Amino acid sequence: MCRFVAYIGPPILADELLYKPKFSLVTAQSMNAGEMSVSVNGDGFGIGWYAPELDNDPCVFRSIKPAWGDQNLKNLAKKIHAPCIFAHVRAASPGLTIEEVNSHPFWCGNLMFMHNGVLGGFKQIRRKMLRKLNDVAYDAIQGSTDSEYLFGMFLNHIRDPFGTVTCEEMVVAMERMFEDISELMMENEIRQHSYLNLAVTNGTCLITVRYTTNPNVQPASLYYMHGREYHCRGEVCVMEPTFGKPSAIVVASEPFTARRSDWMKVERNAMMIVDETMRISFRNVEMDVEKVDFESIAPEIG
Amino acid sequence: MCRFVAYIGPPILADELLYKPKFSLVTAQSMNAGEMSVSVNGDGFGIGWYAPELDNDPCVFRSIKPAWGDQNLKNLAKKIHAPCIFAHVRAASPGLTIEEVNSHPFWCGNLMFMHNGVLGGFKQIRRKMLRKLNDVAYDAIQGSTDSEYLFGMFLNHIRDPFGTVTCEEMVVAMERMFEDISELMMENEIRQHSYLNLAVTNGTCLITVRYTTNPNVQPASLYYMHGREYHCRGEVCVMEPTFGKPSAIVVASEPFTARRSDWMKVERNAMMIVDETMRISFRNVEMDVEKVDFESIAPEIG
Amino acid sequence: MCRFVAYIGPPILADELLYKPKFSLVTAQSMNAGEMSVSVNGDGFGIGWYAPELDNDPCVFRSIKPAWGDQNLKNLAKKIHAPCIFAHVRAASPGLTIEEVNSHPFWCGNLMFMHNGVLGGFKQIRRKMLRKLNDVAYDAIQGSTDSEYLFGMFLNHIRDPFGTVTCEEMVVAMERMFEDISELMMENEIRQHSYLNLAVTNGTCLITVRYTTNPNVQPASLYYMHGREYHCRGEVCVMEPTFGKPSAIVVASEPFTARRSDWMKVERNAMMIVDETMRISFRNVEMDVEKVDFESIAPEIG
Amino acid sequence: MCRFVAYIGPPILADELLYKPKFSLVTAQSMNAGEMSVSVNGDGFGIGWYAPELDNDPCVFRSIKPAWGDQNLKNLAKKIHAPCIFAHVRAASPGLTIEEVNSHPFWCGNLMFMHNGVLGGFKQIRRKMLRKLNDVAYDAIQGSTDSEYLFGMFLNHIRDPFGTVTCEEMVVAMERMFEDISELMMENEIRQHSYLNLAVTNGTCLITVRYTTNPNVQPASLYYMHGREYHCRGEVCVMEPTFGKPSAIVVASEPFTARRSDWMKVERNAMMIVDETMRISFRNVEMDVEKVDFESIAPEIG
Repeated sequence: MCRFVAYIGPPILADELLYKPKFSLVTAQSMNAGEMSVSVNGDGFGIGWYAPELDNDPCVFRSIKPAWGDQNLKNLAKKIHAPCIFAHVRAASPGLTIEEVNSHPFWCGNLMFMHNGVLGGFKQIRRKMLRKLNDVAYDAIQGSTDSEYLFGMFLNHIRDPFGTVTCEEMVVAMERMFEDISELMMENEIRQHSYLNLAVTNGTCLITVRYTTNPNVQPASLYYMHGREYHCRGEVCVMEPTFGKPSAIVVASEPFTARRSDWMKVERNAMMIVDETMRISFRNVEMDVEKVDFESIAPEIG
Repeated sequence: MCRFVAYIGPPILADELLYKPKFSLVTAQSMNAGEMSVSVNGDGFGIGWYAPELDNDPCVFRSIKPAWGDQNLKNLAKKIHAPCIFAHVRAASPGLTIEEVNSHPFWCGNLMFMHNGVLGGFKQIRRKMLRKLNDVAYDAIQGSTDSEYLFGMFLNHIRDPFGTVTCEEMVVAMERMFEDISELMMENEIRQHSYLNLAVTNGTCLITVRYTTNPNVQPASLYYMHGREYHCRGEVCVMEPTFGKPSAIVVASEPFTARRSDWMKVERNAMMIVDETMRISFRNVEMDVEKVDFESIAPEIG
Repeated sequence: MCRFVAYIGPPILADELLYKPKFSLVTAQSMNAGEMSVSVNGDGFGIGWYAPELDNDPCVFRSIKPAWGDQNLKNLAKKIHAPCIFAHVRAASPGLTIEEVNSHPFWCGNLMFMHNGVLGGFKQIRRKMLRKLNDVAYDAIQGSTDSEYLFGMFLNHIRDPFGTVTCEEMVVAMERMFEDISELMMENEIRQHSYLNLAVTNGTCLITVRYTTNPNVQPASLYYMHGREYHCRGEVCVMEPTFGKPSAIVVASEPFTARRSDWMKVERNAMMIVDETMRISFRNVEMDVEKVDFESIAPEIG
Repeated sequence: MCRFVAYIGPPILADELLYKPKFSLVTAQSMNAGEMSVSVNGDGFGIGWYAPELDNDPCVFRSIKPAWGDQNLKNLAKKIHAPCIFAHVRAASPGLTIEEVNSHPFWCGNLMFMHNGVLGGFKQIRRKMLRKLNDVAYDAIQGSTDSEYLFGMFLNHIRDPFGTVTCEEMVVAMERMFEDISELMMENEIRQHSYLNLAVTNGTCLITVRYTTNPNVQPASLYYMHGREYHCRGEVCVMEPTFGKPSAIVVASEPFTARRSDWMKVERNAMMIVDETMRISFRNVEMDVEKVDFESIAPEIG
């Protein structure tokens, strides 16, 4: 299991997202996450952001070290001032190696992607996943995790990741990715549950998913807050409310500011879409494989 | 706060010390230590051992990565078959950097040294500690931690760390180190408590200390077990009892085998000495600085 | 282009293979190799060895750091005393990432494998290589390099890498690997040349290959020396001659001892086999793809 | 010996300084420097820059990996758009460890500092250097290199590194640092030569030094070019000339653009000062210790 945070809105300092909040991703959740069975996320980290004044590609900095002690991340967080930021702390699933290429976020062209959870039966279906990929999606994969393979399955439905990708195209690609995964699982009679909390962005549109195939448990936690502006005064970080359409949105595995009431849960098995105009909408996510009988015991979440 | 384990006795596989036991240093204590306030020890690790058939110097392998996911440690543990093994997982004290040279054990000549705890007022007295060192002790220091500076203070009382060092010389050096530290603390009016669980060996003699200046709390935990032979059958690791003098001794920050009754506590503020003949004895450890009024609030243990 | 060394014979210290010789793999070839266009091999290293007194699996220690400055390697080299040692310093081919899993040697069951060179057209055929692999071979692959994919193709012809593998089985697997590669190259009309210097062992038998598809250049260099015993007196390392069958053999990308006359070249496009009885034999290696017209300009060797 | 580059002027992309030029620091000088005896600078790297729109502190990203293969540096270089950039590739001197804290640039408050060369007799005088430091300078030191100790000696003469530091104050501190070093060398009868190419900045003023105590050789190379604007068109990077006062200045260990005639040498034993108004001036640097008889053979430059 991992933890992640995604921000979209007026440019903010990464420091205010990752370090300053009371229960921030780096200072608290990387070492002692609150809503996970395994509370340590020390198997590498990554941060990605956009600098639209320069170009449309994300800039990604990843490491195999724990986030909590990394001086480079601490330094960078004070200089990354961006309108869209992804950050992720990893707890590697058993059997998956800790390498820089296996740290999130993954990226290709304008797109960034991260995952919290585990794809059930990955070892049995990973070869078949690779076979389904077109060359662009295949070449985008550098590592060996279920998370990055999911990114490949998503990219498979993007016409040209190196060109302009619209929000709608991303939504469709995400839905198709779920269909493809479902199909693979049924074909291969996978009986292990999946936990698929996902986030993907092109820098202007943000899609997140909270999902599990397991009817007996809740998906891994996923929260959001929105408003006019997110900022910190000293150690106190808040989302300023707005009566109109929000202009700033944070999605996070766990609430990290002191005012818990600012945070709303993303519903079970839902996709949350923040489009280019900052309009928020939701769609249900389901996989046909859910209707299949799974084994009673869910695997450990990685 | 860190966790460590020390073994001396007939040659054993490091795997049986570090991986196989139910609550082992690498698989359990590095990520979820039981007897600490901070339970994550992910700021690097180290293992040191002797191969007396080759020479008398220890071989040390250290890393800045968390122990739990390190493939090299896992591989080595299956091939290190040694009569004396030290292993350590680190939780860096705030302000101290995570570098390979700051991982334990430290070594010089035939000696290895490790520490679990924190030296109170280190930042205020570190310059003075360095000044006290002779050139050999000074040159042995590669990093910047309180732990390694303590090793320097210990080496300061070893006549020639590159020659033969007797058990008695090590005991005396340890006692003098405590005296010197006490003196420095009093001179500099240090009012922060120290937690000094220590282990040092020359490969044939093992000295460990459980100590704190703080009268209001217990020192960090330290346990030992002894017997005829330590071994694992599958996942079950035990110390075989003996009626005579023990031939195998394990000292560890936390019991890691299933049979808790095998483990005894090292007493508060005590030094445990296992000499070259495997005879165990204890001495009290005290520092004059204990008699001074400390601030009521102890610093966080690092 | 990389550099490697392989030893088989009476147990020796890794130090005598990697550090002591005048032009050793670590002290000289990693930073300034003599017989390569690119002379720096700083993209990670690895060492693997056997401890037959414990078990039949190799122990592999790998890193992404340059070998020349690594303190762990330096320490370990003084304690690794083994009858079969592989060591490798890497110069990553353009486009291939520097991750621990991409460092050589690779291993599976009792087998270790390393490569110096580049597989022509890897990017075009890598998906097809993966498809050819049985599940055991596929699961053995952790990284993303041409070198490790070659190991997979080799493993594909080993009945059970986790059981006993004979020398003859290894020879056949190597030959079949070349056939499979040749076939893939022809089917996919690869027009880039390959440079395949390889070494594989099960701990008692050593197979090395010096090969290129390019008729216009020599394969990367590969040398060997054999004799009664390899040892160093101070800085002077020699292979003691013998009139009978050799009992010690070193194969290396470049001669590393002062007495160049001790070294013989492995012939162009040849496989050198040292069987369990230390008998040396040679076979020609050829691929049908050699008969095809290649582009005149060979790619840069990685 | 190391290589470095410093830029001050209108904001540029780090990519144009570090990757695009024909013979750039990362793509060429890190692996194959032209004007050094040792041509590999693979013992870590660092980059530092200012974002005056956010604050006055530098942002430093450092690593122990070789620069040439680092994906994070490559990514960051495309997003660092700054008016003052330092970058450094390290070749560690023998005996000095490769740790992140030992990578350049070093920083404290608003100041950044880097070094190419070696301080003669460092091991003999390092303890005395530390003793001379005030607490602020002492606390700024995290590592163990001659380079960072020099930075400490420089900081020793800065009134408040965390406040505003003027160009003039930096010039004076640099001169005093040389005096102090000279004195220490004479007192301790150091007979090894020093090579002190240095760069320091507060973000708006740039001071560089090219210096050696050795009368028989040239100091390590140091070049500069200045003009209206530095930029790259595709792979061609040039400094646009100006008839008036320059607005952009690059100082580098080696020329890295194709048009060598753009580059001028910093003279032997000279300090080049670029003040806040971009005015360039030079001062001689000398140490009394130069008048002393040194041993005829200079130590290897690290």
